[in-house]
Amino acid sequence: MHTLSDLQSLISQEIDRYVKEIKHGTLYEPVKYIFDLGGKRMRPALMLSACDLFGGDIRDAVDPAIGVEVFHNFTLMHDDIMDEAPLRRGEKSVHTHWNTNNAILSGDVMFVMGYQLMCKVRHEILPDVLAVFSKTAIEVCEGQQLDMDFEERDDVTIGEYIEMIRLKTSVLLAGSLQIGGIIAGAGREDLDRIYRFGEQIGIAFQLRDDLLDVYGDASKFGKQVGGDILANKKTYLLLKALENAGDSERSRLNGLLDGKGITPEEKVSATIDLYNELGIREATEKVMQDYFENAMEELQALNVPQDRKSELTQFAELLLVRES
Amino acid sequence: MHTLSDLQSLISQEIDRYVKEIKHGTLYEPVKYIFDLGGKRMRPALMLSACDLFGGDIRDAVDPAIGVEVFHNFTLMHDDIMDEAPLRRGEKSVHTHWNTNNAILSGDVMFVMGYQLMCKVRHEILPDVLAVFSKTAIEVCEGQQLDMDFEERDDVTIGEYIEMIRLKTSVLLAGSLQIGGIIAGAGREDLDRIYRFGEQIGIAFQLRDDLLDVYGDASKFGKQVGGDILANKKTYLLLKALENAGDSERSRLNGLLDGKGITPEEKVSATIDLYNELGIREATEKVMQDYFENAMEELQALNVPQDRKSELTQFAELLLVRES
Repeated sequence: MHTLSDLQSLISQEIDRYVKEIKHGTLYEPVKYIFDLGGKRMRPALMLSACDLFGGDIRDAVDPAIGVEVFHNFTLMHDDIMDEAPLRRGEKSVHTHWNTNNAILSGDVMFVMGYQLMCKVRHEILPDVLAVFSKTAIEVCEGQQLDMDFEERDDVTIGEYIEMIRLKTSVLLAGSLQIGGIIAGAGREDLDRIYRFGEQIGIAFQLRDDLLDVYGDASKFGKQVGGDILANKKTYLLLKALENAGDSERSRLNGLLDGKGITPEEKVSATIDLYNELGIREATEKVMQDYFENAMEELQALNVPQDRKSELTQFAELLLVRES
Repeated sequence: MHTLSDLQSLISQEIDRYVKEIKHGTLYEPVKYIFDLGGKRMRPALMLSACDLFGGDIRDAVDPAIGVEVFHNFTLMHDDIMDEAPLRRGEKSVHTHWNTNNAILSGDVMFVMGYQLMCKVRHEILPDVLAVFSKTAIEVCEGQQLDMDFEERDDVTIGEYIEMIRLKTSVLLAGSLQIGGIIAGAGREDLDRIYRFGEQIGIAFQLRDDLLDVYGDASKFGKQVGGDILANKKTYLLLKALENAGDSERSRLNGLLDGKGITPEEKVSATIDLYNELGIREATEKVMQDYFENAMEELQALNVPQDRKSELTQFAELLLVRES
């Protein structure tokens, strides 16, 4: 068994090796650039870890693991255009450093590169691996579309929000884990369970992100604390606040969303005050804990010796307390 | 054996059936829209025709043939953003009808849909089919990038131009034909030959397009005649004119490219006059004929009864005289 952090180091080295071999030229410079910005390499490490969990040879999972990271970075490159995000990991995003056309086309070529890497599995499992990968890719697009649609709507429900983050964030964790399992030759029931583990833990992961935006430590979070509040982003916290609010609180909240006559700092601090009055932090932590427990149940039920599950257990536990 | 035009009708029906089954929602409306704009369905028909040529069952090629048309339309959707093209087949392009974000994301999801369709081949040929498809997709991106790079350069050679149109246009015809051959179980040598047939005929196809822009009949061409001239597009004709020009003609040509003090109509007609003086039409037709003959040699050498080659022969001949 390998620790998840060992697998993260290993896959980082393999990614560096892969990136070094990428061709030169206008099309490929943004591809190298976005990889050089780094990242936790969580998805490929999870794929290797699932392969390891089910007794597979992690070397068989290296290429598809790089593939899932290439795919993830492709989605970041295109999402940053759509979200008009000037920064990515503290540096200029690709469409800002170059231009929108470069970010579109280099993203497209990365998508193909992701598929090429995903195809480097044993031929007999290729159809299954690609079925998961393509379904996941479709759902990630659907999640991004819902996220954009929600910006135009003021009647988004908590259920719809959970479905959006499931598609936009969770399914790629779930798919990565499941592909790791397929490579290791896991059975159907276990493949479904490891997928659901990823789905539930991915939702908990995103809820933690929503919490960190409001209650995080700016020195650790790496993004502007209060950024979601300033952008009126429909996070779990905001939707829950709208749900819990009585008439007077709702009118205060609508005033804050409107933002007229107050400074950004006042908007953030008054929103946090209101969240505190409404118990939003505790409510979000509670539901995050529920998703965590669902995930752990799936993990416990896997038909694998309990001691092999310690890495993914630890991963899940760390997600709940992460600061960045 | 089926005629190419029968195969075009057949695949059009299959595409209509496929499009009808596409989900509803913001993400998918642009996908249906771009298919509803129509098109000659040339690439999927060529895939079916190559399958037929090598004695395969065309029903085995229907899903991947739809896949190549989905991929082709994805490239159109993204190219139209990059080229700032307001129209596609005489109607609003997707990013004009909706917006750039919709065209990016719906294009992305189409790319996955293309792969999903391509995966619907017999498992034993899946790795080969995907290898061709992914290589083709990479090259199409590289071709589009070169095309954009050329806009910024004034030293593009004819050799570079041919390589750009090979990548941007030819390889998808070549790849479609080769995948049809793989589905039919053709041998390695024949697969290479049918690919080269597609490559050569694709270059001839694009040269014909360059000619039609200048010498076409506006009522048949479907695009504005002289559009390339007005956009200073570095077509084969312009590059050949720059190559053939003596000092005085070069200075006239540069004046026309500069376009100061002349109307668009004057620019088009004076450029055509200059092309005529320099024998550009004949030179382009000659080189187009050369690519056509190379293509026919590949077709002749295929290890297939001669009478099975009549459809692709006719297709190639029609390309040379097409008016739209």
